[in-house]
Amino acid sequence: MYSFKNDYSEGCHPNILKALAETNKTQQEGYGDDQYSIKAKELIKEIIRSKHATVHFVSGGTQANLIVISSILKPHEAVISAHSGHINVHEAGAIEATGHKVCTCYSQDGKLTPKQILEVVKEHNEPPHMVKPRLVYISNATEVGTVYNLNELQELSKCCKDNNLLLYIDGARLGVALITTANYHLTLADVAKYSDVFYIGGTKNGALLGEAIVIPNKELQEDFPYHLKQKGALMAKGRVLGIQFLELFTNNLFFELAEHANSKAMQLVEIISDAGYKFLLTPESNQIFPIFPQKLAKIITDKYECYPWQVMNDNEVAIRMVCSWATSDEAITDFEKTLKK
Amino acid sequence: MYSFKNDYSEGCHPNILKALAETNKTQQEGYGDDQYSIKAKELIKEIIRSKHATVHFVSGGTQANLIVISSILKPHEAVISAHSGHINVHEAGAIEATGHKVCTCYSQDGKLTPKQILEVVKEHNEPPHMVKPRLVYISNATEVGTVYNLNELQELSKCCKDNNLLLYIDGARLGVALITTANYHLTLADVAKYSDVFYIGGTKNGALLGEAIVIPNKELQEDFPYHLKQKGALMAKGRVLGIQFLELFTNNLFFELAEHANSKAMQLVEIISDAGYKFLLTPESNQIFPIFPQKLAKIITDKYECYPWQVMNDNEVAIRMVCSWATSDEAITDFEKTLKK
Amino acid sequence: MYSFKNDYSEGCHPNILKALAETNKTQQEGYGDDQYSIKAKELIKEIIRSKHATVHFVSGGTQANLIVISSILKPHEAVISAHSGHINVHEAGAIEATGHKVCTCYSQDGKLTPKQILEVVKEHNEPPHMVKPRLVYISNATEVGTVYNLNELQELSKCCKDNNLLLYIDGARLGVALITTANYHLTLADVAKYSDVFYIGGTKNGALLGEAIVIPNKELQEDFPYHLKQKGALMAKGRVLGIQFLELFTNNLFFELAEHANSKAMQLVEIISDAGYKFLLTPESNQIFPIFPQKLAKIITDKYECYPWQVMNDNEVAIRMVCSWATSDEAITDFEKTLKK
Amino acid sequence: MYSFKNDYSEGCHPNILKALAETNKTQQEGYGDDQYSIKAKELIKEIIRSKHATVHFVSGGTQANLIVISSILKPHEAVISAHSGHINVHEAGAIEATGHKVCTCYSQDGKLTPKQILEVVKEHNEPPHMVKPRLVYISNATEVGTVYNLNELQELSKCCKDNNLLLYIDGARLGVALITTANYHLTLADVAKYSDVFYIGGTKNGALLGEAIVIPNKELQEDFPYHLKQKGALMAKGRVLGIQFLELFTNNLFFELAEHANSKAMQLVEIISDAGYKFLLTPESNQIFPIFPQKLAKIITDKYECYPWQVMNDNEVAIRMVCSWATSDEAITDFEKTLKK
Repeated sequence: MYSFKNDYSEGCHPNILKALAETNKTQQEGYGDDQYSIKAKELIKEIIRSKHATVHFVSGGTQANLIVISSILKPHEAVISAHSGHINVHEAGAIEATGHKVCTCYSQDGKLTPKQILEVVKEHNEPPHMVKPRLVYISNATEVGTVYNLNELQELSKCCKDNNLLLYIDGARLGVALITTANYHLTLADVAKYSDVFYIGGTKNGALLGEAIVIPNKELQEDFPYHLKQKGALMAKGRVLGIQFLELFTNNLFFELAEHANSKAMQLVEIISDAGYKFLLTPESNQIFPIFPQKLAKIITDKYECYPWQVMNDNEVAIRMVCSWATSDEAITDFEKTLKK
Repeated sequence: MYSFKNDYSEGCHPNILKALAETNKTQQEGYGDDQYSIKAKELIKEIIRSKHATVHFVSGGTQANLIVISSILKPHEAVISAHSGHINVHEAGAIEATGHKVCTCYSQDGKLTPKQILEVVKEHNEPPHMVKPRLVYISNATEVGTVYNLNELQELSKCCKDNNLLLYIDGARLGVALITTANYHLTLADVAKYSDVFYIGGTKNGALLGEAIVIPNKELQEDFPYHLKQKGALMAKGRVLGIQFLELFTNNLFFELAEHANSKAMQLVEIISDAGYKFLLTPESNQIFPIFPQKLAKIITDKYECYPWQVMNDNEVAIRMVCSWATSDEAITDFEKTLKK
Repeated sequence: MYSFKNDYSEGCHPNILKALAETNKTQQEGYGDDQYSIKAKELIKEIIRSKHATVHFVSGGTQANLIVISSILKPHEAVISAHSGHINVHEAGAIEATGHKVCTCYSQDGKLTPKQILEVVKEHNEPPHMVKPRLVYISNATEVGTVYNLNELQELSKCCKDNNLLLYIDGARLGVALITTANYHLTLADVAKYSDVFYIGGTKNGALLGEAIVIPNKELQEDFPYHLKQKGALMAKGRVLGIQFLELFTNNLFFELAEHANSKAMQLVEIISDAGYKFLLTPESNQIFPIFPQKLAKIITDKYECYPWQVMNDNEVAIRMVCSWATSDEAITDFEKTLKK
Repeated sequence: MYSFKNDYSEGCHPNILKALAETNKTQQEGYGDDQYSIKAKELIKEIIRSKHATVHFVSGGTQANLIVISSILKPHEAVISAHSGHINVHEAGAIEATGHKVCTCYSQDGKLTPKQILEVVKEHNEPPHMVKPRLVYISNATEVGTVYNLNELQELSKCCKDNNLLLYIDGARLGVALITTANYHLTLADVAKYSDVFYIGGTKNGALLGEAIVIPNKELQEDFPYHLKQKGALMAKGRVLGIQFLELFTNNLFFELAEHANSKAMQLVEIISDAGYKFLLTPESNQIFPIFPQKLAKIITDKYECYPWQVMNDNEVAIRMVCSWATSDEAITDFEKTLKK
């Protein structure tokens, strides 16, 4: 049963396994002071064109989110998120567990707008009785596969600066957001330029594990490693993370893997569109949400692993299909055949 | 420059890399529901002879400690630890960050005694003005290489039961504690029998990363995965952990690696003893603390990476030397030559 | 400038001052073990007809809320509240600061329904990725002056029991909720019978300060004083709280003061209705929300202190007016004159 | 049975009750914006000769401690305290519950020295594995009645400044520390000058309840009211606190009450010394610790309420006796008679 359930069903890109094997016997410093982590950090700083940024590797996205957010906010400060944001829905209260409220805005497409941010700020007008919004959280790509483009990011950045807010980008799927044809102009350097802190997702883009937290804003850099340690994120064998990111950012592997995931998703989109079906949201990256008649949806979810997403009406249902760095041509062809039957 | 600094300087045992490579392409469920994790958990439960225990894999020891402890304690409850306990000294306040006090007892050899535990309980006699001790934390092997034997563990267990305390064993170095010649009789099944929760350390015993939290006490099992998720420890590609523990507990690899670490350390002990030097603490596992004249210590720490540990007097200093699953015969021979010169 | 801004603008009922003066010189145990607190607790237990309940006095409502909620919930558990609930809006993130998410339902009249609660439970269907709702928070009277009647409370209680949820009632304004003509049948004993924990508000019903937390559910009673102490709520001179509640519950003073507040509010309602104006919500207790033309609203808010509440349209605005145990006949008469002009 | 158990056994000074009664009917703004609080804050700022300090009233000492400390520290930062410090022993883990470690130094006389502080700083030399000490907590008078004099305070202040540490003084018993004959030169203005934040205790010096947090360090002032609100310390009827501090600092009442407490304690000291008994610590303020033969101690604790403190040997025990603003001449005379018998 082939899985279109998510983008972390397989292991990792073979180059990464190879690099782990080749470096396996060398002795290295622990806790991220190994040579591979040091090189990988330098490489990332070059690519984002920011000498003064700091880079830190952690093992997962929820970990990145809770550490970044709790390291920034004072006890009375809150983070603004789309209601569908990962930190609001799918992290088992990780942010609240560090003491902070998540202020939410309803968002049909998973994206936050400057207008919504301003409304949240305006509503919180009774100091000291209400929390003080201080940070804006967006995910790019979002949890529903949509992407922020350069222009949107610039506007969010301006809105934040104008309102004494910081901007944090959850980049669990940053690769596919950068590489999508919906987003010609956005680069990693832009992401670094227009945010205060963000992370580059490895787990969902071909690594075994690992996310790279990047902090362009100097004021947020001080003492950051303490937060990593305190929250259990400072791996003794930090080399495991360093080696992977070194591999991902050598010879553009990171971008190639994202390109693969997107292009496979777009093949599915074409197949599904050609068959006459529509989508819940315009497909922009590796997560797509086709709307199928109930019967057809049943056939598909019986044959492929994927999440039913939303009942549209008595006859139709949207399902979530995800392609990854590892999605095969065969899987696409097979799906095409299934659909045609 | 050869490193005797710690037991996480190298990558992992080659069998683990091989297993990662062999399983790399299969699609698996995320978040620990993969086949490898499921099998590895069953295997561990067999070895500890407890069908009803639950097993959970996480990426590191501080993570294991903070999740276990915060999942057990109510806000006013505290954990008792030796002053030298990892949670008290080297976790950047991870336990306090989850809201709990660490009550400490001074311990010269890194071990807690029932007598010390009783004293802490007795001191906390002014409810509700003082915290309520509820959990005892020990590490086996300890942070200074000493080990608790079966008898000591039984006595601690009894003391805890008699005083309405729970017992948690930090097993970052559980392998070397079980396999040491100082500890003929202690088995993993004993550890499970005499504790309420413990973890089996992979990172310091030949894995790339990974610790296996084992919960024999049924009352502590409910909802545990929520805590993993909330603290950022539930890896999307849980297979990475499952594969490693499956490998470690197949064909006794886990114990063989610990045996290697201990026997190399004992070779060092013999060399050092033969040369006429003493130790800060009787060597029992893979961490040893020889006392050298300042001059000799300088020569050694110039040639090998290892921590100066404690200034004994104007002339002597104790240093920490650690052997691992990967320590080579050449390194031992080389050290012997150095010492003889 | 007379204030209809809230129900805590004046000091306290003279009987309370008298009682404080009369008892002032006696020596008493600290931290709530004084004779007055002990008597007041017994008196409250008699009135709620529950021998096994426990009673604890604290200085304020936010304090009561954060202590009760954090004492009940495990780290991954959440509380359900109307979006307008005090804990969600006006406590500066107090609940999140103790580590817990507030799951909200939109409520036009400030009240939660069993249907809404069920929806929240149903949505949280992805363990362990989402928080686990465990507690329902309602305020009676609500933040917008509406009240839950006996029938509604019974249904909420049943819904909670059926879904393994606990029910907590914020009774900052419980007096006016019990005594309102909209609520003939609800008694303090009912509140105790149909909730797991609640508090009786003193501050907004004639005390200088003080709220009485009542815990009918035995399972929530253990170690509660530790939570009081840890959160800074255990007053050294607990007598100050005990004396006040003893006074409030002797000779029905508590209910008389609530009756006064409600009847003054209903006089305002009659005056405003007679003048042809409507209300945002049907007035049920001591908080009313008349809708006035902008011009008239301006005249009123220039003459009396009260909060503009909600702009209805270009011409009309709703304002909040609150009566208290201390609202005078003169104030009502004066307002009537103002309105007629 | 007369109580020498503590300094909060009685109600409050009659002037305070009178002021509460006289102001009872006036309507005032809530949450500390009342006229009395505003005036009291101005008065305190005059007395401490600091125009730019901010003053905030809360209901108790544990509350003051947990709010001040959690408002200052970042998640990885810790507070240094004597092992006997109130925050370490008698606050049920209040500081840890806000996420922070208390680093302790053993202190026979309850006082911290610059040398001890430096040792703690020096020990915490493994960033990011250890917490980062950032704040020093002292209580003046200490929990065992000793006092810091001007010179000691200056030295602590210098030590803190030199080591990037902030200084916080718990002044639950600041009155008796300032007024003691052991401390001719220390003024409230000095306390403000040499600390970053402190509080002036009302509860233990003649108020019904109330502590005044004073923040001379401008960098710690921002957003402080949010912390008050979030921790449940912002009283709706803030007037209750304002009125009391206004009264305490009008006509030197605060200092007169402290003087009374100290002088009564010194009368006890003279009586006890004359009878040939010694003290555990040199008596300096209103808490004294005479050492009596077991038999005599029994007679005294049977007749007067007071805490047995420390068993000295088989024959002797130290007890704690406390005088207050309300201790009567009769009590002293009666004790003298008892002792002579």
